[in-house]
Amino acid sequence: MKPGRSSRVKEGKNRKPIGVFDSGLGGLTVVREIRKQLPRENIVYFGDIARLPYGIKSKAQIINFSLENVSFLLRSKVKAIVIACNSSSSAAFEVLKERSPVPVIDVIEPAAKLASAKSRAGRIGLIATKATIDSRAYEKALKKLNRDIKVFAAACPLFVSLVEEGWMKHPVTAQVVKQYLSPLKGKNVDTLILGCTHYPLLRSSIKRFVGKRVKLIDSAQPSVKELASLLERNGLSYTRARRGKLAVYLSDRPGNFKKIGERFLGEKIRRFSVVRVPA
Amino acid sequence: MKPGRSSRVKEGKNRKPIGVFDSGLGGLTVVREIRKQLPRENIVYFGDIARLPYGIKSKAQIINFSLENVSFLLRSKVKAIVIACNSSSSAAFEVLKERSPVPVIDVIEPAAKLASAKSRAGRIGLIATKATIDSRAYEKALKKLNRDIKVFAAACPLFVSLVEEGWMKHPVTAQVVKQYLSPLKGKNVDTLILGCTHYPLLRSSIKRFVGKRVKLIDSAQPSVKELASLLERNGLSYTRARRGKLAVYLSDRPGNFKKIGERFLGEKIRRFSVVRVPA
Repeated sequence: MKPGRSSRVKEGKNRKPIGVFDSGLGGLTVVREIRKQLPRENIVYFGDIARLPYGIKSKAQIINFSLENVSFLLRSKVKAIVIACNSSSSAAFEVLKERSPVPVIDVIEPAAKLASAKSRAGRIGLIATKATIDSRAYEKALKKLNRDIKVFAAACPLFVSLVEEGWMKHPVTAQVVKQYLSPLKGKNVDTLILGCTHYPLLRSSIKRFVGKRVKLIDSAQPSVKELASLLERNGLSYTRARRGKLAVYLSDRPGNFKKIGERFLGEKIRRFSVVRVPA
Repeated sequence: MKPGRSSRVKEGKNRKPIGVFDSGLGGLTVVREIRKQLPRENIVYFGDIARLPYGIKSKAQIINFSLENVSFLLRSKVKAIVIACNSSSSAAFEVLKERSPVPVIDVIEPAAKLASAKSRAGRIGLIATKATIDSRAYEKALKKLNRDIKVFAAACPLFVSLVEEGWMKHPVTAQVVKQYLSPLKGKNVDTLILGCTHYPLLRSSIKRFVGKRVKLIDSAQPSVKELASLLERNGLSYTRARRGKLAVYLSDRPGNFKKIGERFLGEKIRRFSVVRVPA
């Protein structure tokens, strides 16, 4: 049976891209996961590298930046938005959900759910930027799932710079990991949330320090699972194309960020456009 | 003899503040030096902490930001402007000088002059952000003074983050210093320019590594000397008040930057205003 007109119209609407934004290129780890779990979907990515990093800035400022980023994505007629940045999720998710005309997914609630499911002892570690830790967003999300969960948090301000410097396996990084994570080690956590999209690139250094017994949780996989179910629920999934298109927009020329961005994305960034946000 | 009317009018005009801007709070090292060399001058400082750091961003972007910062300072009727940021000086000095209705001082030419005067062997090291190094601004300034000078440059991307983390004397910092400065050590430089307003706070770690024989040059003292002579030349010096006022404007709430800002300034930051730039 050939599809009727209404079905074509519907698929046409679903062809609209998913909008993803981050303060920089770390959010490309989420894009990579979308391309794995939902390979046919079109994606528009915006990285605010002109104003990065967000994790050391105030909540009010992160909300301003995030609203501007969403306005930019909406001009591309996105059908849903993923906040692929923990600092922005923790500061701005509620505001964005309220103001956005399309559904919004954050990276914190899905990671919290997965961590809560994986932890046997209910002792969960969290490493993140200062903004994310200070917001207590993970703590609130975890406590909502299970009031008995104990959360032990440590801010790791240098991790983002170390990743951007490409020092993933440098001895200095091992030393910084030790310094930041030592207080958590004494707490007997059995699960550790990597609460920043940059941190999965430090996975091996972190794993080496905390030991194999501790499960590491990052946001990309559970957030995209949540996104898939949201699209499905709202009849917004796109299943026609072979492989979705990816458009990358940045608020500055990426310089040597491009190389690191490709490491996040797991594929070459063939084209990108530099745009001014706010316009 | 009592001053006549015209002299009073003139002094009134001179009471106008000196405008100083930086991407963050590092430029307060320059303010500290103004308060030392020119204690009676009023100062308006703007720190663009919402968009810091500049040193990893593109030249075009740094020029945009710098023009916006100058527009903000001009609204405070400043009589002269100091670009207290090496990344901004290297990218935007020419543009700002051309467009500003008041005289503009950068931090690169004065430091280059001092380094050239101090170096006996004409072998000068430079450490700075990637933006400053890539611009070759120091190299051009030094070669203009003396074509025979040899410049050996090393970008030190992690230094700013280490200072902001407060790890001035941390063993990790010593290790990072070693990694970045080792290539310079073999070059027999007798003078080393600290080409970023954050770096003077790492002076002791750097000194320990390069040895006492190497003269360390930072921009604050020579830039303010240049400013003093510029004010003098243009009849703009203000000599009436006991101690000038300092107004600090920031583009975001400073959070724990305040503490580090006070370290740069060498006095308490009693009051600051958060403003939106561009307005």
